[in-house]
Amino acid sequence: MPSISQKGREMPPSPIRKLVPYAEQAKRNGIKVYHLNIGQPDIPTPDVALNAIRNLNLRILEYTHSAGNESYRRKLAGYYNSIGIHIDYTNILVTTGGSEAVLFALMTCVNPGEEVITPEPFYANYNGFATAAGIKIVPVTSYIKDDFALPPMSEIEKKITAKTKGIIICNPNNPTGYLYTKEELYILRDIIKKHDLFLFCDEVYREFCYDGAEHFSSMKLEGIEQNVVMLDSVSKRYSECGVRIGAIVTRNKEVLDTALKFAQARLCPPGLGQVVAEASLDTPPEYFAEVKHEYTNRRNFLVEALNKIPGVYCPKPKGAFYTVVKLPVDDAERFAQWLLEEFEYKNQTVMVAPASGFYSTPGMGKNEVRIAYVLNTADLKNAVEVLAKALKVYPGRES
Amino acid sequence: MPSISQKGREMPPSPIRKLVPYAEQAKRNGIKVYHLNIGQPDIPTPDVALNAIRNLNLRILEYTHSAGNESYRRKLAGYYNSIGIHIDYTNILVTTGGSEAVLFALMTCVNPGEEVITPEPFYANYNGFATAAGIKIVPVTSYIKDDFALPPMSEIEKKITAKTKGIIICNPNNPTGYLYTKEELYILRDIIKKHDLFLFCDEVYREFCYDGAEHFSSMKLEGIEQNVVMLDSVSKRYSECGVRIGAIVTRNKEVLDTALKFAQARLCPPGLGQVVAEASLDTPPEYFAEVKHEYTNRRNFLVEALNKIPGVYCPKPKGAFYTVVKLPVDDAERFAQWLLEEFEYKNQTVMVAPASGFYSTPGMGKNEVRIAYVLNTADLKNAVEVLAKALKVYPGRES
Repeated sequence: MPSISQKGREMPPSPIRKLVPYAEQAKRNGIKVYHLNIGQPDIPTPDVALNAIRNLNLRILEYTHSAGNESYRRKLAGYYNSIGIHIDYTNILVTTGGSEAVLFALMTCVNPGEEVITPEPFYANYNGFATAAGIKIVPVTSYIKDDFALPPMSEIEKKITAKTKGIIICNPNNPTGYLYTKEELYILRDIIKKHDLFLFCDEVYREFCYDGAEHFSSMKLEGIEQNVVMLDSVSKRYSECGVRIGAIVTRNKEVLDTALKFAQARLCPPGLGQVVAEASLDTPPEYFAEVKHEYTNRRNFLVEALNKIPGVYCPKPKGAFYTVVKLPVDDAERFAQWLLEEFEYKNQTVMVAPASGFYSTPGMGKNEVRIAYVLNTADLKNAVEVLAKALKVYPGRES
Repeated sequence: MPSISQKGREMPPSPIRKLVPYAEQAKRNGIKVYHLNIGQPDIPTPDVALNAIRNLNLRILEYTHSAGNESYRRKLAGYYNSIGIHIDYTNILVTTGGSEAVLFALMTCVNPGEEVITPEPFYANYNGFATAAGIKIVPVTSYIKDDFALPPMSEIEKKITAKTKGIIICNPNNPTGYLYTKEELYILRDIIKKHDLFLFCDEVYREFCYDGAEHFSSMKLEGIEQNVVMLDSVSKRYSECGVRIGAIVTRNKEVLDTALKFAQARLCPPGLGQVVAEASLDTPPEYFAEVKHEYTNRRNFLVEALNKIPGVYCPKPKGAFYTVVKLPVDDAERFAQWLLEEFEYKNQTVMVAPASGFYSTPGMGKNEVRIAYVLNTADLKNAVEVLAKALKVYPGRES
């Protein structure tokens, strides 16, 4: 039997996956598990999107263009222009989810062995795509004491070496929910310009901004138009994670032309997903108003309730639907496993994502967890109650 | 502006893509272009598949399992068992098209810098995926004089080095249409066993076998059960290329577990595509009988008509819907471009794929083209007539 060494391509372990068997066992034991660990929204997909697929009038489900259907790209360009991102459809490459957008952007702009800087904690799969592409992700730590604001320019610049090709950020951020300000983006702009790097900006949570805060897109940064590669997805915006439609958006034609070669090798992005995504662009504004209202309520409830638990600190993030929370525990990974394996309150427990998996500096985030507020407020209320009870009796509690 | 060097990851050029602008120009000039260059079948997708999507009863288009919906995998395992491939659903990882199946299989089993042998001419995108994965494809030439039969064992073994990790074949073959015999597969079995390699077997054209010939799956080879990684796709089988659903099928659990890590990073294969693919498994046998009948007629017509043209040689392949044809021309790439740029007969011309793009040995396939018989017989007839007229007047004709 031939051996697999995965030398030079070992995928990083995922602390969430490790917990899945414990969650499954808890469920088999008749315990209700509140999933605060995942980013699958419970919001219905817009009707216009579902109807487009029900009314599908195709006889053959053919390959589409490798860069995506032109009709979709044109309409998507219209959406970007409506939010002040002035591009046209030739600046768009449709991808198989935001995942492929990240992978193609990295493979296009960064050679094997080169480096990309990112503020940590960061979306763990960046590590996976970087590994697949033979690239190193270099973390610069942001801290819960600062509510995960952008690290200072000097700290970022310390990480720049001859191998650095770019900086990748997620705004609003997964896992922290932090919304980078216009000022912070201009700091990044200055670094990018000074060192002639790429700025990869993952803006898939753009629509999820609260308290009247406005999202400032990397595509609006003046003076680095050729350096910015925006990564997008319809997954969260329209609650259609399963359609696997994303996009690379950039004014840099060389980047698009090169990314298209990777796109041509895999033939095309999903055709039915493109039909859904195109129709989703007609989603009425009331849909988003309602979604935003719902998430604001959930966040407000969650943050307040968590901060009432002794020893817990939860920032009040302005975006996405995640927050990273500090818990009075010795080891959040052990605590998360203990919750599933040994704890129950009224036959209920919760599953959280240990934050250490979102850091790449060893030892960071050890007493932090990521919580996604993708449950309705009633469920969230029960989940927080369970968490509070659990923290009282957890043997590894620290104060 | 940061530079892109693509050092160590330069995607191979595609001779077909190069011709696209000429085809577009010809169309703008009012010329009808017969596309013999592509693998997009004109056969309708089965009704059961289209109806499944029209009757879709989902409120949220959620992420699916990273390995694919269990219901689909179970039903797909049933299909494999019905054709004598004895596995269960845990042997299947659902992928985003056959493309991702090839990519994940290579990234899982072959380290950067290692090698995979393949008979040439071969499906050109293997090169693309190998490049993305930092792997080298090593060709062993098969010849049109042998109708592209498997090269002898000694020729294959000559290519084996310390870096060789496997052999990849496509059966029935794209681009040649050649159907490997059971005997040839046992020759491969012996090589695989002797050198402890992986056998990657792309069987996406399994249903397209003619003249009563039967497809012999690599999954039936005894003695190398842990070495075989079968790559599959629903694209051609059900004429649903756009749904982007494929699969890795193997009895090697280590391969599946490792491939799953790449699958988890990209979250899931397309959800709607899986709905279509699952429903497609209920396609009635008459559908395939009709399709096979249609392709057999097309092939018979095409092969006979081509061989009637002076100087042309076309093997009579037993599978898929391609054939590689030898033409009396100096350079098939130049001829293909000339057809689009300078030739027309009754306002018609043809687009063919120069075969050199399917070889990686320089100079090979210079007077060969790949022709796909994805047009109906009436169109094929016109196309061959145009080709015959063109060969008469082509200035670079060789006899």
